[in-house]
This record gives sequence, C-alpha cells and structure tokens, in this order.
Amino acid sequence: MSEAVQTLEGWFALHDFRHIDWPRWAHLPADERRHMRDAFLDLVARWDEIEATKQGSTALYTVVGQKADLVMVHLRPTLQDLEATELVFERSEFATLARPAYSYVSVVELSNYTTKPGTDPSDDPVIQRRLKPILPKTEHICFYPMNKRRQGEDNWYMLDMEDRRTMMRSHGEIGRRYGGKVTQIITGSVGLDDWEWGVTLFADDPIVFKKLIYEMRFDEVSARFGEFGQFFVGNRLTRERIDSWLGL
Amino acid sequence: MSEAVQTLEGWFALHDFRHIDWPRWAHLPADERRHMRDAFLDLVARWDEIEATKQGSTALYTVVGQKADLVMVHLRPTLQDLEATELVFERSEFATLARPAYSYVSVVELSNYTTKPGTDPSDDPVIQRRLKPILPKTEHICFYPMNKRRQGEDNWYMLDMEDRRTMMRSHGEIGRRYGGKVTQIITGSVGLDDWEWGVTLFADDPIVFKKLIYEMRFDEVSARFGEFGQFFVGNRLTRERIDSWLGL
Amino acid sequence: MSEAVQTLEGWFALHDFRHIDWPRWAHLPADERRHMRDAFLDLVARWDEIEATKQGSTALYTVVGQKADLVMVHLRPTLQDLEATELVFERSEFATLARPAYSYVSVVELSNYTTKPGTDPSDDPVIQRRLKPILPKTEHICFYPMNKRRQGEDNWYMLDMEDRRTMMRSHGEIGRRYGGKVTQIITGSVGLDDWEWGVTLFADDPIVFKKLIYEMRFDEVSARFGEFGQFFVGNRLTRERIDSWLGL
Amino acid sequence: MSEAVQTLEGWFALHDFRHIDWPRWAHLPADERRHMRDAFLDLVARWDEIEATKQGSTALYTVVGQKADLVMVHLRPTLQDLEATELVFERSEFATLARPAYSYVSVVELSNYTTKPGTDPSDDPVIQRRLKPILPKTEHICFYPMNKRRQGEDNWYMLDMEDRRTMMRSHGEIGRRYGGKVTQIITGSVGLDDWEWGVTLFADDPIVFKKLIYEMRFDEVSARFGEFGQFFVGNRLTRERIDSWLGL
Amino acid sequence: MSEAVQTLEGWFALHDFRHIDWPRWAHLPADERRHMRDAFLDLVARWDEIEATKQGSTALYTVVGQKADLVMVHLRPTLQDLEATELVFERSEFATLARPAYSYVSVVELSNYTTKPGTDPSDDPVIQRRLKPILPKTEHICFYPMNKRRQGEDNWYMLDMEDRRTMMRSHGEIGRRYGGKVTQIITGSVGLDDWEWGVTLFADDPIVFKKLIYEMRFDEVSARFGEFGQFFVGNRLTRERIDSWLGL
Repeated sequence: MSEAVQTLEGWFALHDFRHIDWPRWAHLPADERRHMRDAFLDLVARWDEIEATKQGSTALYTVVGQKADLVMVHLRPTLQDLEATELVFERSEFATLARPAYSYVSVVELSNYTTKPGTDPSDDPVIQRRLKPILPKTEHICFYPMNKRRQGEDNWYMLDMEDRRTMMRSHGEIGRRYGGKVTQIITGSVGLDDWEWGVTLFADDPIVFKKLIYEMRFDEVSARFGEFGQFFVGNRLTRERIDSWLGL
Repeated sequence: MSEAVQTLEGWFALHDFRHIDWPRWAHLPADERRHMRDAFLDLVARWDEIEATKQGSTALYTVVGQKADLVMVHLRPTLQDLEATELVFERSEFATLARPAYSYVSVVELSNYTTKPGTDPSDDPVIQRRLKPILPKTEHICFYPMNKRRQGEDNWYMLDMEDRRTMMRSHGEIGRRYGGKVTQIITGSVGLDDWEWGVTLFADDPIVFKKLIYEMRFDEVSARFGEFGQFFVGNRLTRERIDSWLGL
Repeated sequence: MSEAVQTLEGWFALHDFRHIDWPRWAHLPADERRHMRDAFLDLVARWDEIEATKQGSTALYTVVGQKADLVMVHLRPTLQDLEATELVFERSEFATLARPAYSYVSVVELSNYTTKPGTDPSDDPVIQRRLKPILPKTEHICFYPMNKRRQGEDNWYMLDMEDRRTMMRSHGEIGRRYGGKVTQIITGSVGLDDWEWGVTLFADDPIVFKKLIYEMRFDEVSARFGEFGQFFVGNRLTRERIDSWLGL
Repeated sequence: MSEAVQTLEGWFALHDFRHIDWPRWAHLPADERRHMRDAFLDLVARWDEIEATKQGSTALYTVVGQKADLVMVHLRPTLQDLEATELVFERSEFATLARPAYSYVSVVELSNYTTKPGTDPSDDPVIQRRLKPILPKTEHICFYPMNKRRQGEDNWYMLDMEDRRTMMRSHGEIGRRYGGKVTQIITGSVGLDDWEWGVTLFADDPIVFKKLIYEMRFDEVSARFGEFGQFFVGNRLTRERIDSWLGL
Repeated sequence: MSEAVQTLEGWFALHDFRHIDWPRWAHLPADERRHMRDAFLDLVARWDEIEATKQGSTALYTVVGQKADLVMVHLRPTLQDLEATELVFERSEFATLARPAYSYVSVVELSNYTTKPGTDPSDDPVIQRRLKPILPKTEHICFYPMNKRRQGEDNWYMLDMEDRRTMMRSHGEIGRRYGGKVTQIITGSVGLDDWEWGVTLFADDPIVFKKLIYEMRFDEVSARFGEFGQFFVGNRLTRERIDSWLGL
C-alpha cells in the first residue's frame, strides 16, 4: 500500500458557470432589463461586502466561446455557505436569464509534497492566507479539472511517496518560474465532484496560461499522469463593465 | 474460473436526484408556492411515518452545485415499494417543480470478504440492522457509483478469492479508522443499474469524505481496480429548513 | 481468420423505453386522462390478441428510477411488423404523454456454441418455440445490451472456436443453475443496433438478476470479454395495475 | 512511414436522419397534414427527377427504433449540391415536423487495396458507375460509420501496405460470398465527418446484414482494427407507402 | 523531463458554429425575415471593415450536415476583442435565429519544430503575416481539433525533442506537397479550450481535405500520436450568396 500525502483544507469553492439567454434579453423591455441588471448589481455588492469582511471571496469573469457566458467563483467557509450563495443567486431576478452551464465543487487545498518533512505548514500565517485566499483581480481566468491517471503502467496511486514527491517538486519548479505572471489556486474535489482537483489560474496575459500548461505537459507528472477535463477561459467582469457587457 | 464472493441483500435503494426549476418558482404567486411547499411537507410526513414504523427509511439532502438541487434517498423492502414511492412523488404538486437530474437503483449489500469463513452473518441481529438500516441524520451526504475494473492486467474478476479478500481487508481497515466520523452504506447494483455498486457516505464534516476517499485511493483495490462515476455532495434538509431553502 | 459460430434467428425485437410526462399528466382534466388511459388499454388489447394468435408477443413493465417509466418489449416476425407496432403506438393519444427514453432493435438468436456439432437445432420444435417465444409473465424484468470485447490481449474475435466454445459452455452452466428462477432471452443486434447482443431476463425475485449476473462476472467470458451498456430493471404492468399506476 | 492506399472519389453523400414529431402530427388538422404530406411528395418528385437525369440519387427509408424515424440518403456531385438538397428540405413545410436526429457527410470511395497494381481503375466504366451509383431499391437499409483502430499493438496505420492489402482481400472475399444478397456502398469521410468511413448496406432480408457483419467481425481486419459507431436499420419508404406511414 | 518546443502566438481565434432555426424562419413574416437578413448583413459589413483595416479577419461558411448550419471564424488581437465580436453577434436580431452549436477558442500558433535552431522566426515579416493572417477566400473550409496522444507506449510528451522534430518534419513535408491546393492555419488551445490544437484548412476542392488528412494518417506522428475531435466541412458564404442561402 502506497502512502497518501497529507493535505490541508481551507475555504470551499463553487465555480458556477452560466449561459446568458441573449435572445430573451434582446426582447425584454428596457425597464425589465434595468431591473435585472440592478438585481445582479445587488448580488455583486453583497459579494463585495463578504470579501471586505473576509467571510469569503468571489471572482466574476465573462467566458469566451459557447461553453458559458459567465463564471462566478465563490469561496466560502462551509458547504452550507456555498449553497446559500448559490440559492440567493438562483432566486434572484437575474438568474431567470442565467441558465446553468457547468459547475464545480471543491475546497482550497495545500499538499505537503513540496514542503520539508517535519515542518508544520498549519503554523504558518502565509499558509493560512493561502487556504482562505482573496481571489486576484487579474484580467483573465483559466479553469480546468484534472485527475491523476490510474492506467496500466501509468498509475500515480501505485507509485511510492518519494517518486511522487520528486515529480511534484519538478512540477512546482515550472510553476515558480511563472511566479510573477500567474496565480494558481489548487482546489481538491475527491468526494466533492467528478475530478480529483480543480485548477484555477489568474493572469493579465492569457498567453501565460498556454505557455505554462504546455510547458508542464512535457513534465513527467503531466505527460504520464495528467488527465484533464474541460478548459474555460474568461475576461474579468468588473462592476463598471456590467452595463457594456449587457449592452445597456 | 474465479470464485464469486457471497453477498447478503437487504432493502432496495433509490437515490432520486432532482433539479428545482428556480426561475419558474420565482414567478409563482405566493399561494401556489405555499401549496407546493405543503405538498412536499405531506410527502416528508409520509416518509417519516414509514421510517418510524420500520417499513423503510428516507434521507433528504440539498445538493451543492448544478448537478442537482435535491436528493431523496429511499430505502424500501421491495422494488414495487420503491416504484410506489417514486410515483407518489411524481404525481405530487411539488414534482412539477422538481425535474429529474439523476437516479440510482440498488440494494443494500453486505459481502463476506471481511468475515471469517464458516460464520453465518445472516444469524447476526447487527447484520440484519445493517441490511435494513435507518439512514443517519448527519449534516452531509456523499454519493458515488463505482465498478471494479476489468482491463488488461488490472482485472478484478480474474483475481483469485484470496487476493481479493486480502485487498478488501486492507480497504476495510482504512474505513474502520474513520469509524466514528463517517457512516458508509454499500448498495449493490449489478443487474439493477449501470455501475456495480453505489457508495453513500454520511458525515457531519464534509472534509472527512475527501480524506477517506483520497486515502483509500492509494490502496491497491482502489488504485488499480476502482472506477468511479459522478460524485454528489449535499447538505441535510430538515423539515425545519424547507421554508428557508425555498425562500418562504 | 477465426471461425464464426452459426446462429439461428427468430422474431425481431423492439425494446421501447418511454418517459411518462407526469407533470403534464398531473394537470390534465379527468376526462382527458381517462381518454388517454383508454387509448393505452386499446393498445394492450391489440397486443394481447397478437400474442393469443401467435403473431408475436409483447411484455409491459414499469421501470424503476429516472431512466424510463415504461418499457414495451415487442417481438414480431418482421422489421416491418415492428415498425407498424411502433407507429400505432406513436400515433395513439397515449403517446403524446410518453416521450422516447431509449430503444433497442434486435432479433431473437440461438447459437450452437453449446450444442453438439452434427446436430441440427432447426429440426427441433423446442428450438422453434425458443426462436418465437411467448414472453414470460414474471414480476420483474432486467434488460441490458452487451458486446464481446476486442481490446489488446482480450479480443474475443481473435480466439479460436474451441476456446470460445469452452468458455461459453462454462457460462451456460451458471445460467442453468438458475434455470427455475430466471428466463433469459438472448437477442442478436449486430447490424441492427449499437451493441452486439441484448439480454432480457425475467424473474419473480429481482435479487436473482443480481446474483446471476454477479456470479457470471467472475466467469472468464464475462470477466475478460464482457462489455455492458445501460441496465434497466422493471416491475410487471398488468392490465389490472394500469389504473393504479396512472393514479386513476 | 507507411504508404497510404490510393482512392478514387465519386459523388458526395449526405445521410440525413430525422425524428418525426408524432405528438404534434397527431394534433394537426387534417388539411395541414395533407399540406405537409404534399410538401414531402413534392420533394420526393424532385429527387426522383434528379435520379432519372443521373444528377444524383436519393434513397428513402423509415428507421426502426427511437434513434430516428426517417433517413434520406442523398448522393450528389458536389458539396454545394448536397447543401442545396438539405436546404430545400429544411425550408419545406414538411421539415417543421422532421427534427434533426443524426447526419453523416462522406463521399463515395473506391480503394485499390483489392485491385492488381498496375491497372488503372479510372479507365473502367464499371468503376465509374460504382463511383456515381444509383442507390438500390431493396426492402431494407443498414448504415454505420467506422474507423480503423490506432491503439497500442493494434494500429492499422502503422502496418505496411502488403499486410493491409492481404487483410482487405480476405475481408473482400467474405463480402463477395454475400454478393447476390447485399449491396455495399463505402463512403470515405476523413476530413468530412467524425469517422473515417461510412458503410451503407442494402438487402431485401435484414438478417443478411447481421450474418455478414457478424462473420466479418471474426476477420482480423475487423476483429483487431474495426471501431464502429451507431448502427441504424430501416424499411423502404416508397412513394406509395408514405400515406400509410403518416396514417393518412 | 522532456523539452517543450518554443511557440509564437498571434491573433486569437473563435470558431463559432451555429444552428439556424429553419422551422421558425419558415414561419416568419417576410418583413421580419428581411429585417434579420439586414441585421446579418450589417455584421458582415462590420467584419469586412475590420479585415480591411487589418484589425482582424473573419471567414463565413455554411456547414454541410446537421452538426451546424453556419460557422463564423473570427481572428482578433485579444480575448476581449473576441468576446466583443461574439457579444455583438449574440445581441443582434439575427442571433435569435442562430442557436449555439459548437465553438472553439484558440490562438494562431507557429512552432519552431521545423525551423533551423539558431534562427529567430520573430524577425521574419512572413512569420508576422502568418501570425496575423487574413483568412483565405476558398470555396471550402475544414475544421477539427486535435491532441497529441499520451497513452502507454504512445506518449508524445515523453519523447525527446529530436524524435519529435524528426516526425514533425516528415509531417510538414506531406503538407508542403499539397501547398498550392490547401492553406492550413494551426491554432493552439492549451489552456484555452478542450483540445491542444485546432486545425483549419481552406481549399477550393474538398477532396483535397480528405486526401491530405488520409495521407497524413499513415505518418507516424498521426498514426501513433494523433487524437481527433469532431470534423466540420463547409461551403463559402459570400455576401452575394446570403439571400439565396436564406431563401429570400
């Protein structure tokens, strides 16, 4: 039996992707549109306050292509808080325009693959801020879920801890070279959703997503053991951009 | 030919996942909403009585994320009883708001992998209670279906009984270490639904789902032989929470 | 080149799975409901007459879980007869309530894997009754489609006839031990539908489906070579039960 | 690098599968039904004229089971002609009743696997008729798309030409034994649709589809290298049968 | 660890596939149809101006078969520009008729697999025109997404750079032989969409797509390492053809 790595868990995460029903929007009277827009702005104000009081964090991005039009990334202390956030949205007037497209439930996770054995990362205030992070305000977001492969000779979970640690360190080194350009938040989803992890990347230059992930794909841990779900890429939706996004 | 393990079967199980049509709910007049809520409360009362009289058991949880909004886990003595439960729901006023999202048909199952040969588990009143269990009232639920893999060198069904028994014992030991924190109900679904088993976990701390399943994934029986379907996670829906859930 | 086994074909089969639109049903006036019920009873009477005159056979079961609500298994002499049966249903008033859920087209098949070479099964009146069977009236039905695997070392179609015959005999022996408890109808669907065979099981105790299929899964022919589609399980729908099923 | 076989291409093909909206049809007034039927008969007349003047060929079959209700197989000289045929249908009154179910775009293809090297099949008027065929008027049709596998040891495209030629000849011999009973039209779809080939079979006895494809499955080229998509089977829809098909 | 190839990125690409709601179109009054057509012509004029001023490029093709009816290929300098283009379309009157069918987000990419080490392709004005290309005006388009395989012995990302370079050169030689007949635009989508690359081919003779891709499939880089998504093929939609396409 192979030894499982220890993990630390922080805030729970809901990536909530939505389609906007543009044809219906196009035919709504102007006052109903403004009413819906205001309903959305009320939600944004509520999420801003939660972030300001460190009870969670929410990031808003519009999604490029047909997979979705909007993604709301919510971090909250408990699954009950996540559900409450989802329900307030679902029952808002804006949600009648924003149909479900995809969602992902996970929890912010730090693993000690790359820390020295013997140290306790839970003592570290930096670690605590990474477990309960305020989401960055970059121009772009990239999200994808992933598994470690368990197939024939390429079975991550049959490797011994030392081999896994070595590969993860090499992986981490690539990430660190992109340090100033991209912020990565790893969320674990074993037992919570269909893949083992979610990866959320934030950057001002979206080519950085491509270069980073492509370079990592040649790393043994991705080349032999990475299995990837759908990829989503988006543009930041600030409060100021909402009107132009909605064509108001 | 490899020897099949003996199993004991108890109550049949229906995991009935539903989407709530929130946009329609948002536009219903207040009296229709109350009427629907009352229809749901009537069902809950009926299920409570079935549980009180030991004719079955029903657990209610709201589901986090877009895969579903509600799951009803019904245990009943026969497939006819399960269908009757499903039909009463389908024909209720509340069901017009609760569209199908996913379902799973199975039967509570105990295997003798981990019991000593020679003993007869059917004599044991504890075993009987495990075959006809009253579902726990924990804060959270986790459900996923699974198969044992039959692929190239990783073919569970070509292993001999002794190897399977050894691996299942090691697997059971991990489970036992989580004993006070999580309750696991295994249901068999060969011939009843698309996967071979359903796993339903109950815990007050949802991180326990993640830690238990992740640790097990390094165990050979999961690492080499486990194939998993969709994962669902939920928050307990008590009678008292129904109004706040529905925004009444 | 490996030698193909000889097969005998009988009646064509359509497994026609339907969703009932329960929300719409719930809101129909009482006279429209009775009108639809009568339309369904007319179809049932027609199918009964076809069975009485040995021009085919039809079995009706309600399906447990969300995959479907109803399955009609029709056996008829020709593909044209099958289509005519389907069309009469589709154009009936009842069908406006019964949306397509899944279907399977196949033909009753007997193979000579397990018969002695040299004998001609087509001479045998028992064989003829098995090719044009009247479907059993058991309490439960189980249906699933399947393939023989063609993957790497596990390629059924590259085995020689003698190995296949030996494995199929062992497989048949398990089936025979369940002889009094379950009736199995094998239908071939190469060239007719997406899998190579359909398996339809009839039994009064649904646990028998689980025990039989689970035991067979340890048999080499299933363990190494079986690939399975969706599984459906149902409860018998007699003419007498139709009103209670529809809540009339 | 392995050598690609030479191919000859003829008419382009569109297999256009449609669902008929029977519930809507059931509720149309008699004059609208006749109007729609007439719209369909106009299309059939147009297609007959195209076939009579050798500008293409169209076959009409009703499909058994829920995958589709109707398939129109159109052969036309260019992709523009195919699209024009599709558009005339889409804009007809009948199409409002006939929703898309599945389609396949390909081109009639002959390969020289089984011809002697050195001969030029393009000189042969028989070859020219096979590249621009008038579709047979048999009672039944069978259609499925397929790939040649590229997986581990079973990689068709890594074999040398001679091995491929030998296997294809053996394959062709099985086909020739069914010569009088079935007509096979192979269409290539590399770069045109999701599979590499479409196979369309025509026969008066549908059991011939099953026997031919089943026997071929034991041939190495299918057993090791064949990957198959959905299978569709249908009954001929003559102009005379249209009224009874529509229940007029 | 294997060395990643260097890439150059140019304009971002959105392949936006749409279904036209022909049944609804059939029932619109003539003035609404003209109104919608004019809305589409306005968009085309806007895209023409963007191309004329070298701020991007847009290609319009109708798609053969049921997968889609229309594809708009947009190249733009930034992801924000792409989203803006998408939003202007979504909010136009024409979009109420043009439902989403499929989309692909990527970025024009050049790799230095086939250039001599030591040279800097970014100095080259030809390279710059290839990174920001004006899309060809050929009669036909072909689009498909693809991955390089990472499976058992066939793992592209575990090969060393020299082997990859050798295989890509051979691949490029096939492409060059088709040079006058087909224009190929490679877009990278690692981190942007679900596959690693998009391939967009332009030719006046669609048989060239088939011959080129089929010949390449025998090349080791495709035979062992190519994994392909859906294929789409289309006919050019000029401004002049719009009326006849819409049946006006």
